Amino acid sequence: MKVVVLAGGVGGARFLLGVKAALDMPAIGAAESAHEVTALVNTADDVWLHGLRICPDLDTCMYTLGGGIDTERGWGHANETWTVSEELKAYGADPTWFGLGDKDIATHLIRSRMLRAGYPLSAVTEALCHRWQPGVTLLPMSDDRVETHVVVDDPDDHGQQKALHFQEWWVRYRAALQAHSIVPIGADEAKPAPGVTDALAEADVVLIAPSNPVVSVGTVLAVPGIKPALQATKAKVVGVSPIIGDRPLRGMADACLSAIGVDTTAEAVGKHYGARKDDGILDGWLIAAGESADVPGVDVSDVPLLMSDVDATAAMVLAAFDLAGVNVD
Amino acid sequence: MKVVVLAGGVGGARFLLGVKAALDMPAIGAAESAHEVTALVNTADDVWLHGLRICPDLDTCMYTLGGGIDTERGWGHANETWTVSEELKAYGADPTWFGLGDKDIATHLIRSRMLRAGYPLSAVTEALCHRWQPGVTLLPMSDDRVETHVVVDDPDDHGQQKALHFQEWWVRYRAALQAHSIVPIGADEAKPAPGVTDALAEADVVLIAPSNPVVSVGTVLAVPGIKPALQATKAKVVGVSPIIGDRPLRGMADACLSAIGVDTTAEAVGKHYGARKDDGILDGWLIAAGESADVPGVDVSDVPLLMSDVDATAAMVLAAFDLAGVNVD
Repeated sequence: MKVVVLAGGVGGARFLLGVKAALDMPAIGAAESAHEVTALVNTADDVWLHGLRICPDLDTCMYTLGGGIDTERGWGHANETWTVSEELKAYGADPTWFGLGDKDIATHLIRSRMLRAGYPLSAVTEALCHRWQPGVTLLPMSDDRVETHVVVDDPDDHGQQKALHFQEWWVRYRAALQAHSIVPIGADEAKPAPGVTDALAEADVVLIAPSNPVVSVGTVLAVPGIKPALQATKAKVVGVSPIIGDRPLRGMADACLSAIGVDTTAEAVGKHYGARKDDGILDGWLIAAGESADVPGVDVSDVPLLMSDVDATAAMVLAAFDLAGVNVD
Repeated sequence: MKVVVLAGGVGGARFLLGVKAALDMPAIGAAESAHEVTALVNTADDVWLHGLRICPDLDTCMYTLGGGIDTERGWGHANETWTVSEELKAYGADPTWFGLGDKDIATHLIRSRMLRAGYPLSAVTEALCHRWQPGVTLLPMSDDRVETHVVVDDPDDHGQQKALHFQEWWVRYRAALQAHSIVPIGADEAKPAPGVTDALAEADVVLIAPSNPVVSVGTVLAVPGIKPALQATKAKVVGVSPIIGDRPLRGMADACLSAIGVDTTAEAVGKHYGARKDDGILDGWLIAAGESADVPGVDVSDVPLLMSDVDATAAMVLAAFDLAGVNVD
């Protein structure tokens, strides 16, 4: 079976662990399998810092599925150290708010060097995955530069607005500055990375991970060509709600949703994605057990949504397969 | 008094500690002083590795004079760690033979980012020295790219010759591959960095540190304009022999000297530099106690040359001042 997943960072990575387990693949690492999983990963969080190209979502997926993640923190490397960052701070080099671990920096050095040598991000990602063997094909949504910027009231100049790179808003300000708008800069001119639309066309089922609907899934969909491919595929498309009750599963998705005028409820997010038959992307929508949601034109089913461990996540994925009418065996 | 020193890396840095001490300046760090020391530092060892611009001689001088050096090893940082390098190795990223410490990498990240933003190396060096406060003006010999290459028999393809970057020959092969020739690539088109020729013109005394005569001092002199400025200055120019007996003070200078057909003796190196009046650069030549050397047109004096500690080095520098006929007070 060919499974395609639209994914962001931490939530997407954990969801992918469950997808692999649901397909009887080892959650971590690679092994022979009759199944193929392809993740279309958000790259609009990517940022140049200290001359290094950092791809938080791709790396979180790669490290998580390759067994290198700090499982407590959910991002970055296990047994990470911070010597380079401390030294950069001693130089007074800005910015200091982004945690750049030493092991992580090796990844960024290789990526930055390859990008500067002219390799596209998709080729760089493939090269990095030679080491990590995530067992899933990780495709950046695009090889072109797309960066989410967030318009806020300037904290240093009252009455003025300014646009921050998403990372600055998210990491430095913990999304506490109200977002007036959230714009994936460069998305209009971006093309899907090689393999992205083919993967959607050839999929047996497409899953939308419970990632941030605005700055993860939303930015993937903002790349021209991806939404039409999602709408054209013969496969069923099932989304998993990132909202339980009126709170995001993790992260600060509510701050992003309010910026685009969407309530933080499973129903509102389901309607925001919309039914495929009505120019949306969903055939099915998985919401938290005991809840209800009315999303016109979309099959809604409720199951336990917590990704507390791989088994729980795999059960959730099997429920998504059920809703899509596909069978693993 | 204005003192200008032509310097390489480890030997140059230790010599500069002695110059500062001889002038009653603190050897490490900066303080008010009536004296000014300017070091014209070799940059032909510089290399791009893993997308980082590495300037071993400038950094060794900066860390040494700023108090950050590993005093045992003589290069790199005190309390250095190697996490990034180990991780690069785990990726199989070449080269693996160059020891790139974590703290050191912070310096290279800042430098590389500034160079890519268009700042010349001299401005970058000044910015880095804001932190380290070496108490000496460190000027790269040139802002232009000059890189020493060494022609050797190809170790992987007998009968063929190949050119290696100096660092590969020096660090990877420990200078054990016989050098057929040593060429400072790019020197012909290089210009002295801002301040270099002015410093020579305004100097009260110029010292040649006991650095490698070929790949440190030799490359500084290979930059068009520097040797003429050295020949035109009103100051006396005194060199300190890097050879004691028939062995280099430190390092593997003999492997370089034999490549250019110069014997590893103080006399031969003195003749190689030559007297200013005969198109050379020396007025005085300081050799090891108890030795003798006949260098036509040059005043030769013998003193203890070991740079075993700052006091011994300062005594050596005072002897050089004596030979130049300048007085510290």
